[in-house]
Amino acid sequence: MKAPILTPLATALPATVPFTGPETQERRQGQPFIARLGANESIFGPSPAAIRAMQAAASEAWMYGDPEVFALKAALAAHHHCAPENIVVGEGIDGLLGYLARLIVEPGTPVVTSLGAYPTFNFHVAGYGGTLHRAPYKGDHEDPAALLALAQQTQARMLYLANPDNPMGSHHAGAAIQDLLANLPEQTLLVLDEAYIDLAPAGTAPEIDPDTPNLIRFRTFSKAHGLAGLRVGYAITSAPLAQAFDKVRNHFGLGRIAQAGALAALQDQAYLSEIRAKTTTARTRLSGIARANGLIPLASATNFITMDCSRDGDYARRVLAELLARGIFVRMPGVAPLDRCIRVSLGDETALAAFEAALPEALKAAG
Amino acid sequence: MKAPILTPLATALPATVPFTGPETQERRQGQPFIARLGANESIFGPSPAAIRAMQAAASEAWMYGDPEVFALKAALAAHHHCAPENIVVGEGIDGLLGYLARLIVEPGTPVVTSLGAYPTFNFHVAGYGGTLHRAPYKGDHEDPAALLALAQQTQARMLYLANPDNPMGSHHAGAAIQDLLANLPEQTLLVLDEAYIDLAPAGTAPEIDPDTPNLIRFRTFSKAHGLAGLRVGYAITSAPLAQAFDKVRNHFGLGRIAQAGALAALQDQAYLSEIRAKTTTARTRLSGIARANGLIPLASATNFITMDCSRDGDYARRVLAELLARGIFVRMPGVAPLDRCIRVSLGDETALAAFEAALPEALKAAG
Repeated sequence: MKAPILTPLATALPATVPFTGPETQERRQGQPFIARLGANESIFGPSPAAIRAMQAAASEAWMYGDPEVFALKAALAAHHHCAPENIVVGEGIDGLLGYLARLIVEPGTPVVTSLGAYPTFNFHVAGYGGTLHRAPYKGDHEDPAALLALAQQTQARMLYLANPDNPMGSHHAGAAIQDLLANLPEQTLLVLDEAYIDLAPAGTAPEIDPDTPNLIRFRTFSKAHGLAGLRVGYAITSAPLAQAFDKVRNHFGLGRIAQAGALAALQDQAYLSEIRAKTTTARTRLSGIARANGLIPLASATNFITMDCSRDGDYARRVLAELLARGIFVRMPGVAPLDRCIRVSLGDETALAAFEAALPEALKAAG
Repeated sequence: MKAPILTPLATALPATVPFTGPETQERRQGQPFIARLGANESIFGPSPAAIRAMQAAASEAWMYGDPEVFALKAALAAHHHCAPENIVVGEGIDGLLGYLARLIVEPGTPVVTSLGAYPTFNFHVAGYGGTLHRAPYKGDHEDPAALLALAQQTQARMLYLANPDNPMGSHHAGAAIQDLLANLPEQTLLVLDEAYIDLAPAGTAPEIDPDTPNLIRFRTFSKAHGLAGLRVGYAITSAPLAQAFDKVRNHFGLGRIAQAGALAALQDQAYLSEIRAKTTTARTRLSGIARANGLIPLASATNFITMDCSRDGDYARRVLAELLARGIFVRMPGVAPLDRCIRVSLGDETALAAFEAALPEALKAAG
């Protein structure tokens, strides 16, 4: 053997990385970022109760985590008024999207998403050979009507929608999601990514029977709960689809510290309320910084503000590069016309002040 | 849609679980186990330095882990005298075996393993539609000659061998592995699972150029390092195969606490030496308990002792059930003729004393 023999599908896949990590950029630049505002992490941190739970679990890390994730699933089911059989817990939404793609996608399977939406979903669909069809955004929103039409046209097996949306920060009212669901083609599963739902206005999350067979909703501890580095996400879906994950998932993939931290975070709803309040304040502050510098802050239902630079993608990319060069880690949408914007995560006052100081210089340098 | 539409392959897969967790059995029995000796975890626990590192990282868990796992990969590369490009880090060996199967296996791909060897490898191969061919053990050892013949006969793409072996605890000298590698068919990749290698006699791990294209070696922090609940494993392989994992892996799947804990564990080699000494002592103690009860303890290069009950599988299963009923969590090999044995992980004196007290009663009750 001269080289590893991969499957034809694996051979054809590019060695892409959905996102370059900030640590990689820090190593390239030879110095750490001053403000980490690019990955929509919660700079406010996790609940102190969750930190204590993880620290206590550290000395028990010699034991595998419960492969049934019993305690956390029971707590999630109680929280969402469904049965534990409606819950799948996994290694972040990213990991769960990978399992979902494996269950549903084979070479040529049509899948619909929005042009410029979450790249990791695309990474997994392409990774199993699926064919992605992309509907453009309508203004700053994913466009349910266009997605629906595309799903009908392509006989899609999955339709991905993030509500609230990343990278634009916009949202649809829950009624729009119910409407979309009611009009789905017979063979289409709605993949509803609600990673930011804890920070969205009341009414954004529709009340839907968890046993609805053509819906899977994704939630995470990475955003409002401030546990991106713990890797715990979950799905709420009909029991048969939830059970199908057992066919393919890494059964011992969710470790002991991860389960303990997520459970403690879920139980600290008071902390979540604090985070919501801090989020509202930080949105106002960050939007003000944008306006003071001639950028248009888009309305946000998330933990970031997307700022319209009102010119083309090349200009926004220059602004981004100048911010990075000044130690401010931010990201931006990948495709036109969304790429007229930069995307800045909320931060504490230290981080936002650093952004505020760097932005005028970056805009000036970008020309 | 009345039910989720899965791919034909996913539809055909059983909703199997490679192992039932001890927590599930505890819930069924309505009480916790007295001694947790069934999952080959390290009851001695992780290094205190690793515990401190994980506890410190807990408050930083709002940040995603570095998707390149740079610091840990660099340390592993230095430890193994190879390049970081030869290392893949992932969510335990289980997670990495899943990615490997995805890269190499498609429906009908022939794969060779031993009859009774690690079921999670089989789970992943079957999960991608591969065809498993199994060579019987020779005595208490996986049989390299039989595996080689079967690989030649079936034109296998992968040949799995665990050295040391689980569930028997036996090992081959490194020279036997080099011999196997030298005689592999052209299209066969040797999947060498060295999960227990840190506890094996000197010379068990062969020195092989990491850029050898037909070899991938798996290591873990779950066994000697006592971090099963952290979920960090890694592979050492040729750079092209290592890079291929980037096509399919969950790039942000390794969290911040996981990376910090594994790095600190790797750096505490003095603790690993302590664990080796404790392992030797505990093997002697546990083997003595077996002998005192008329069972034959097999020689072990691992953190468990497999005990030959000298009768058939039904008898060993009764012994196992009686131990479980007495609060002692142990497991046993799944298939004949290995299933004449029970498999007992090493423990501290408290756990071993509990096993010592329960074993005579369990043997008597088993008849």
